[in-house]
Amino acid sequence: MMRSDLEIVKECDNFPYYEVGSADAFASAIEPLWLFYLPDDPEPHGFLIDSVVKRMPWTAKFRIDLSPRKEVHLLKPEGNDDWQAACADAIDELLDLARAENAFPHLGKKRDEQFPIIGANFDIGIERSAMSLFGIVGRGAHMTVFTRTNEGIKFWVPRRNANKSTWPNMLDQAVAGGVGRGETPFECIVREADEEAALPNELVRQNIVAAGTVTWFNISDEKAGGELGLMNPGVLYVYDLEVGEDMVFKPVDNDIQSFHLMSVDEVRHAMGSGEFKPSCAAVMIDFLIRHGFITADKEKDYVEIISRLHRKLPFRTSPGY
Amino acid sequence: MMRSDLEIVKECDNFPYYEVGSADAFASAIEPLWLFYLPDDPEPHGFLIDSVVKRMPWTAKFRIDLSPRKEVHLLKPEGNDDWQAACADAIDELLDLARAENAFPHLGKKRDEQFPIIGANFDIGIERSAMSLFGIVGRGAHMTVFTRTNEGIKFWVPRRNANKSTWPNMLDQAVAGGVGRGETPFECIVREADEEAALPNELVRQNIVAAGTVTWFNISDEKAGGELGLMNPGVLYVYDLEVGEDMVFKPVDNDIQSFHLMSVDEVRHAMGSGEFKPSCAAVMIDFLIRHGFITADKEKDYVEIISRLHRKLPFRTSPGY
Repeated sequence: MMRSDLEIVKECDNFPYYEVGSADAFASAIEPLWLFYLPDDPEPHGFLIDSVVKRMPWTAKFRIDLSPRKEVHLLKPEGNDDWQAACADAIDELLDLARAENAFPHLGKKRDEQFPIIGANFDIGIERSAMSLFGIVGRGAHMTVFTRTNEGIKFWVPRRNANKSTWPNMLDQAVAGGVGRGETPFECIVREADEEAALPNELVRQNIVAAGTVTWFNISDEKAGGELGLMNPGVLYVYDLEVGEDMVFKPVDNDIQSFHLMSVDEVRHAMGSGEFKPSCAAVMIDFLIRHGFITADKEKDYVEIISRLHRKLPFRTSPGY
Repeated sequence: MMRSDLEIVKECDNFPYYEVGSADAFASAIEPLWLFYLPDDPEPHGFLIDSVVKRMPWTAKFRIDLSPRKEVHLLKPEGNDDWQAACADAIDELLDLARAENAFPHLGKKRDEQFPIIGANFDIGIERSAMSLFGIVGRGAHMTVFTRTNEGIKFWVPRRNANKSTWPNMLDQAVAGGVGRGETPFECIVREADEEAALPNELVRQNIVAAGTVTWFNISDEKAGGELGLMNPGVLYVYDLEVGEDMVFKPVDNDIQSFHLMSVDEVRHAMGSGEFKPSCAAVMIDFLIRHGFITADKEKDYVEIISRLHRKLPFRTSPGY
């Protein structure tokens, strides 16, 4: 049974919406969550679930409030000229403790890879692997690569390696990666294009087109291969790259097992039968909509699909500094 | 003072959002509204405001509930083989009465122009001029026309006539119009391209690119020139058309006073200083994002702008039949 485009998008964007005139599934889903706050900032930046709050070895640098609402506050470090840096240290220290206790089997080793809390009032990073424990907005950049042939547009689509811890064997975007702290989405995609597909820097810079974002609010399930039930609001910065027909893509690292040149119909069939990593399928559907391959005249759920591809995230996404 | 891109988008999409962790402006704005229901359908299709419900000369074909929630129900016509057609008649009859009593000075004369209730379970139209009294999702199709020159992309932008009842003298999309009952967005834009810009049918069909939607939830203000405070959820189906540099646009009807060929900078300046009709400015910002003229690296509110341009509407937007 082939999935519809709306079902494909819902796989990624699976947190309930507010429904006018019916039992409010959105409020019911929000109610049990813990809000994560930074110092001197009235707006929350993350959602933690009960099982994470319970297992996390909270230090004195955090305050846990049960009433009037479930909240976790990172306290403002005192006696410190650079209290912003001390905030990041407090989170690092907490995660080291959690690792020592093996509180979260999927947390993994500490790596030198920090993601920003994008709506914060100051520059603060948090380890990539811990983003979803705090339910903070994650950022990635994805580039769809296509070429025009006599038989119509074709896409260069990689298949992930079988030994990947997340989404093994699934189809992916030609180039994709997480946008780190201090990096712009554009710098990220140029870097990844080199690392993942050996695309010359100049070729990318001259021909790439920034084309918006895809956003969602996802609750992690067993397919993602990590902790279950975590809140993952996410944004992908979307880029298109048209290349010549003579260009051939080959795997350059161990993340990818093969590259395939696929027609629009082949891509749609692969998405419908669940072969794409869900976030990559969402980016592909956005591409097919922007380029007129999925239209209102043929797709009855057109309006809802487009709104769901661009969900307004539950936290601030504009930097406050 | 130039408006930011986010402020421009908010002018159109001005109904509050649910804000996590703060007083819920969204719920407060929803609470006083009346929900509009069709027979045999548990989902609402419109929002009416108090002043409309009070002035409307409701007939026995409607039921007004005050508790447990403010609701207006169109009752299922009895003893009628074609009860769906009788529903449309009941609304027509009501609007005739409202006109006879001059209940809504801005309602205007009856015209032979019907819009569909897009999420209904059957094919039902409602007069265009009455859509916003019922707060039903309105539909339009907008086409941005551009050409590539030595100095970069330029847009063909019309200025509305001074005597228009809505948005006089403001800048608009090259081609735009409401999508009527029984019409697809594509048929609408081809028809309007002929009527408004004398564009040859074949040229449009061969070169047009469907590129998604722009959606919003607007509360009408004094600038729109109609009844104040009405709930206007809306969807515009967005199309791009690239034309040759030799093509020159001229007004062909009385809606437009002049056509201008404007650069990206000129368009952005005109939007920032409030010269564009708000919905057209939103479509233009969507174009500039999809084509890489507004990017995440330069626009700090990029993610929020894109989400607001594609708001999930409060009612079903997929036809239920």
